[in-house]
Amino acid sequence: MVFGNMGDDCATGVAFSRNPGNGDNKFYGEYLVNAQGEDVVAGTRTPAPINAASQSEHNKDLVTLENGMPKLYKQLVAIKNRLEKHYRDMQDIEFTIENNRLFMLQCRVGKRNGPAAIQMAVDMVKEKLITPEIAVTRVTPAQLDELLHPIIDPKTEKDHAVLCKGLPAGPGGACGQIVFTAADAVNWVKNGKKVILVREETNPEDVEGMRAAEAILTARGGMTSHAALVARGWGKCCIVGCSAIHVALTSKEIRIGDTVLKEGDWLTLNGTKGNVYVGQLPMMDAGEENRVLMDFLAICDKCRTMGIRTNADTPEDAAKAKSFGAEGIGLFRTEHMFYGKGSDEPLFYLRKMIMSKTTDERKKALAELAPYVKKAIKGTLEAMDGMPVVIRLLDPPLHEFVPQDEGKRKELAKALDLNMNDLVKRFESLHEVNPMMGHRGVRLGVTFPEITEMQVRAIYESAAELTKNGKKPYPEIMIPVTCDVNELKDQYAIVKRVYKEVLAKYNLKKLKTLTGTMIEIPRATLLADQFAEVAEFFSFGTNDLTQMTFGFSRDDTGGFLGKYVEKGVLEGDPFQSIDVNGVGELIHVGIERGRHINPDLEIGICGEHGGDPASVEFCFKVGMDYVSCSPFRVPIARLAAAQAAVQYGCTCKGKCNTKAKGKKK
Amino acid sequence: MVFGNMGDDCATGVAFSRNPGNGDNKFYGEYLVNAQGEDVVAGTRTPAPINAASQSEHNKDLVTLENGMPKLYKQLVAIKNRLEKHYRDMQDIEFTIENNRLFMLQCRVGKRNGPAAIQMAVDMVKEKLITPEIAVTRVTPAQLDELLHPIIDPKTEKDHAVLCKGLPAGPGGACGQIVFTAADAVNWVKNGKKVILVREETNPEDVEGMRAAEAILTARGGMTSHAALVARGWGKCCIVGCSAIHVALTSKEIRIGDTVLKEGDWLTLNGTKGNVYVGQLPMMDAGEENRVLMDFLAICDKCRTMGIRTNADTPEDAAKAKSFGAEGIGLFRTEHMFYGKGSDEPLFYLRKMIMSKTTDERKKALAELAPYVKKAIKGTLEAMDGMPVVIRLLDPPLHEFVPQDEGKRKELAKALDLNMNDLVKRFESLHEVNPMMGHRGVRLGVTFPEITEMQVRAIYESAAELTKNGKKPYPEIMIPVTCDVNELKDQYAIVKRVYKEVLAKYNLKKLKTLTGTMIEIPRATLLADQFAEVAEFFSFGTNDLTQMTFGFSRDDTGGFLGKYVEKGVLEGDPFQSIDVNGVGELIHVGIERGRHINPDLEIGICGEHGGDPASVEFCFKVGMDYVSCSPFRVPIARLAAAQAAVQYGCTCKGKCNTKAKGKKK
Repeated sequence: MVFGNMGDDCATGVAFSRNPGNGDNKFYGEYLVNAQGEDVVAGTRTPAPINAASQSEHNKDLVTLENGMPKLYKQLVAIKNRLEKHYRDMQDIEFTIENNRLFMLQCRVGKRNGPAAIQMAVDMVKEKLITPEIAVTRVTPAQLDELLHPIIDPKTEKDHAVLCKGLPAGPGGACGQIVFTAADAVNWVKNGKKVILVREETNPEDVEGMRAAEAILTARGGMTSHAALVARGWGKCCIVGCSAIHVALTSKEIRIGDTVLKEGDWLTLNGTKGNVYVGQLPMMDAGEENRVLMDFLAICDKCRTMGIRTNADTPEDAAKAKSFGAEGIGLFRTEHMFYGKGSDEPLFYLRKMIMSKTTDERKKALAELAPYVKKAIKGTLEAMDGMPVVIRLLDPPLHEFVPQDEGKRKELAKALDLNMNDLVKRFESLHEVNPMMGHRGVRLGVTFPEITEMQVRAIYESAAELTKNGKKPYPEIMIPVTCDVNELKDQYAIVKRVYKEVLAKYNLKKLKTLTGTMIEIPRATLLADQFAEVAEFFSFGTNDLTQMTFGFSRDDTGGFLGKYVEKGVLEGDPFQSIDVNGVGELIHVGIERGRHINPDLEIGICGEHGGDPASVEFCFKVGMDYVSCSPFRVPIARLAAAQAAVQYGCTCKGKCNTKAKGKKK
Repeated sequence: MVFGNMGDDCATGVAFSRNPGNGDNKFYGEYLVNAQGEDVVAGTRTPAPINAASQSEHNKDLVTLENGMPKLYKQLVAIKNRLEKHYRDMQDIEFTIENNRLFMLQCRVGKRNGPAAIQMAVDMVKEKLITPEIAVTRVTPAQLDELLHPIIDPKTEKDHAVLCKGLPAGPGGACGQIVFTAADAVNWVKNGKKVILVREETNPEDVEGMRAAEAILTARGGMTSHAALVARGWGKCCIVGCSAIHVALTSKEIRIGDTVLKEGDWLTLNGTKGNVYVGQLPMMDAGEENRVLMDFLAICDKCRTMGIRTNADTPEDAAKAKSFGAEGIGLFRTEHMFYGKGSDEPLFYLRKMIMSKTTDERKKALAELAPYVKKAIKGTLEAMDGMPVVIRLLDPPLHEFVPQDEGKRKELAKALDLNMNDLVKRFESLHEVNPMMGHRGVRLGVTFPEITEMQVRAIYESAAELTKNGKKPYPEIMIPVTCDVNELKDQYAIVKRVYKEVLAKYNLKKLKTLTGTMIEIPRATLLADQFAEVAEFFSFGTNDLTQMTFGFSRDDTGGFLGKYVEKGVLEGDPFQSIDVNGVGELIHVGIERGRHINPDLEIGICGEHGGDPASVEFCFKVGMDYVSCSPFRVPIARLAAAQAAVQYGCTCKGKCNTKAKGKKK
């Protein structure tokens, strides 16, 4: 036993070999003269900084160890250096000085926050203290996530009462004024205001308002509700299922217990924790343009063997994702152009197409729609020049596009020279009991081949025109919701014919392109060998695959999934992290059977899971070529893929069965 | 070459060693003097009967072969007997007489309709001409189906005047509106009408119209005419050679004596007797009281190794199914009591339960509902005394029971002392986007354990009270929609506790009962090994399993499934016959993994497929213990199971992996 409290030539202290708060490679610590360890922890006396680098507002007037006991400080620095070199990591050191003699009590790997973890990893690689492989294991995906979103200033947040709690659906902090409709959100933001869109729940018609808002707050819905999915895709702060809130749309106010808040009142959200606060809390930036972050992700890329793509539906999203390091688009949803800004005209022609009574009418409407489809596709192919872009053919059931509002209906009826009765009748005939399992995806393509043809032509013509302009477009045509290889064959006949026609039209010999399918129906995984005879790539749509494997409708899990997780019936929400035992087995079977027929089959994932670290690890283990996720999750996926490669790719001693392995190394 | 048309000592004929129309063991045939074979088939001359047994209204005045050429007839009979003994089956014989000398042209196994096939099979077993194993292969499920087809209600038929008579070429009754061309038949049926195709005679070009029609009526032709042959093949109601009818194609009318009937007028046909009636006569189901059918099914049961249960929801259905030969109930849907007759009171309490805001309120409503549940269960257990009854716990989502009509809503609001606003809000909150994959089945049981408890108590108390009364109730409690074994464990805790409580209450040592689960979610098949650690039986719910494996909502396939089958994208409707490659693999995996853990696991099927012969064969091959189907399909299932056992059970030489095999033999 040594004592630090035997006089003024005694002391005790705690130090970190580098700054655990920001990662600076500067010795950092505190000490107390004539004290024992518990005195430091107790906080009854203010400890002094061990050196200038450790000084703060609070302790800048106190004598540093460096100045007060210079010899001992030097000794401590030497030991610190030795320890760090030995352990190759930042050390948390406890020491005691008894009568001018330095004793080391213990050392261990020091805890650190996200920014510090990344800074240290990058520095230590530069210092050649650790290899890149070790560096990528030093940062958790959650720590990386901290750097990607602005947050509420933690000091202020600590002092504020939480108004209510919901599910943390989109990370980071945000503050803004309450609005209740998507239209208001758009208008207020146009007028230079910051808003938080508060809804009972959101639907596709709210998308523009959601995009305009700083954050979204809903009273209902789970982690996979519309609001949560959209917000996560954008990396936007979002809290859902905040059931304490009662939204009164007519009076434009919300009640939370006794508190009543009106339109225009300020709210602050902590989307990482799910906390809602009244008023404006100060925000701080977590460092988007962070040089160190870029360096760290470059280290990840050195270790990574699996590709990272992104889910993006516009040229703007594509460009942003590229800046985050995406190496292609894994999911371009053609239907995006029918939602939100600039969708009025294409949506009108789509609705005209839906209303068509004959194939000829439908073809005419499709011809009017085609230029819009081509424009969106061409722009995205151009933005991703040289990189693959997986373009999914029209997926949602047609009734999703039926106008709900009377005005739009009247306008449509007039334009189509139809009476409202006939219009409404046609709309009603599209109604489905379980739309998720209804007339959608390839089922539309098989029943209305002209829809497929229009889309395929738009894709190939875009690629042909870009090629003529010296670009390197690389479209991959993806056919969704397939359950039988004959669906693929049916659609391939169209794809092949249009391909030839476009080549002839543009006088080209060939285009770089693949045609494949989304594997999202359980049956498709089982018959993957048949699919692989035709498809050039598979992309696992794990959202729908999870829905059907569990029999869970994502929109309807609100009533029980929370209870399931609470009771431990399920370990977690299978829409967040891939259910390895069930859904995972189907994916595994699908890959095995697919690659058995075609070992070069390109295989990826385009569900939300592509941005979840545990799921990325799973994707690596089953041998996928790439994962695709929302632009804001790309850095997380790069890290997770690197960690998986380091953990499983390097220890396989040649036994590793993954195709991805060794691809880049 | 021999000639039957060289004078009056020549003839040609077609005969069957037994009557192909009803199976009577009587030589049956037609011949024409001074004619060649094609004259018989053409139907231009009315052939004469070969003997008295072959006489009909139509030809009773013509000289029989037996009378006209007695020596040759005797010779023919001797040959016929020899042929049948040799081939051990009914023979279709063609002969020609040239100048008083008999020549046999050919013989082959004769086509027959369903009733005839069954009669012959039963007779030949009795005659020891064939074994029971061979007998069951002599009747196709479609032929058996003929006997199960509706007939005209005999009481009504008795009171109706026969308009005219023809030859009974296809059994059963049918009614429909008169059409005169095959094309009209097809078109009218497309428009939802039921038609009877009336023709002078038919030819191969009429086949599609004949298929579409409920029945076929011709003015000319014998039992071997085109119409008769085709209709017999399909087991379709058909009357031929109804010479009283004069068909006027141009005016689209028929005259029978003074009666004139036009296109669109209603006719009713008794194809078993050859009677034609004007108007619509009521139909009823046949077969139930048929002695030969019972004998044949008894032969099937001798060969069969797999059990046959039925899906029945009331004591009445249970009793009916028992009379058809069901050996238990494979699916008793507790929710039946909330639909149809007598459902007002239980439905009211169920709705009260749904509206409950607290667990206490819910428990109170459940207590009021319990006596109704118990009554239905007890009645069914009693009706099936000694046989297993699989009782499925509440399956549909609660919103299915929400009253749609204003009056019922007001009544409920009043009874619950609620305002309409709150009531409607609660109802709306139950709405689901994809109810098939929503808050239903075990998900209700996990979130509202008191619902499970009430049902389980009703089951065990029913069993206990019946046991006390000397009965042998055998309830099997089935938990539906499970996707994870933890759901089962959660519910089992309730089941076990209530079991002990009921035993104590009734002072009983034990009850004969099993608790198991419905396997209808793809994930459950994959994790069947885990399920088998807990469940005492599996019952495959192939309806939902097919829905989720294909991603097809049965309610919403209208838009594309027809097109799929038409284009050959799918071979057939997977809801009619099990999709062996996809759904079948999941079932196979589920059984294999389940039995790997518990070799004695009782395994059955309770989806619609249980009554489909091809699916029954599949169920046999994968080793199920029983199939369960609707009461009217029980005979079909008995035959199909017997055929599967004969075809696959007997040729396995011990390699057959099916548990069912040898169980009964």
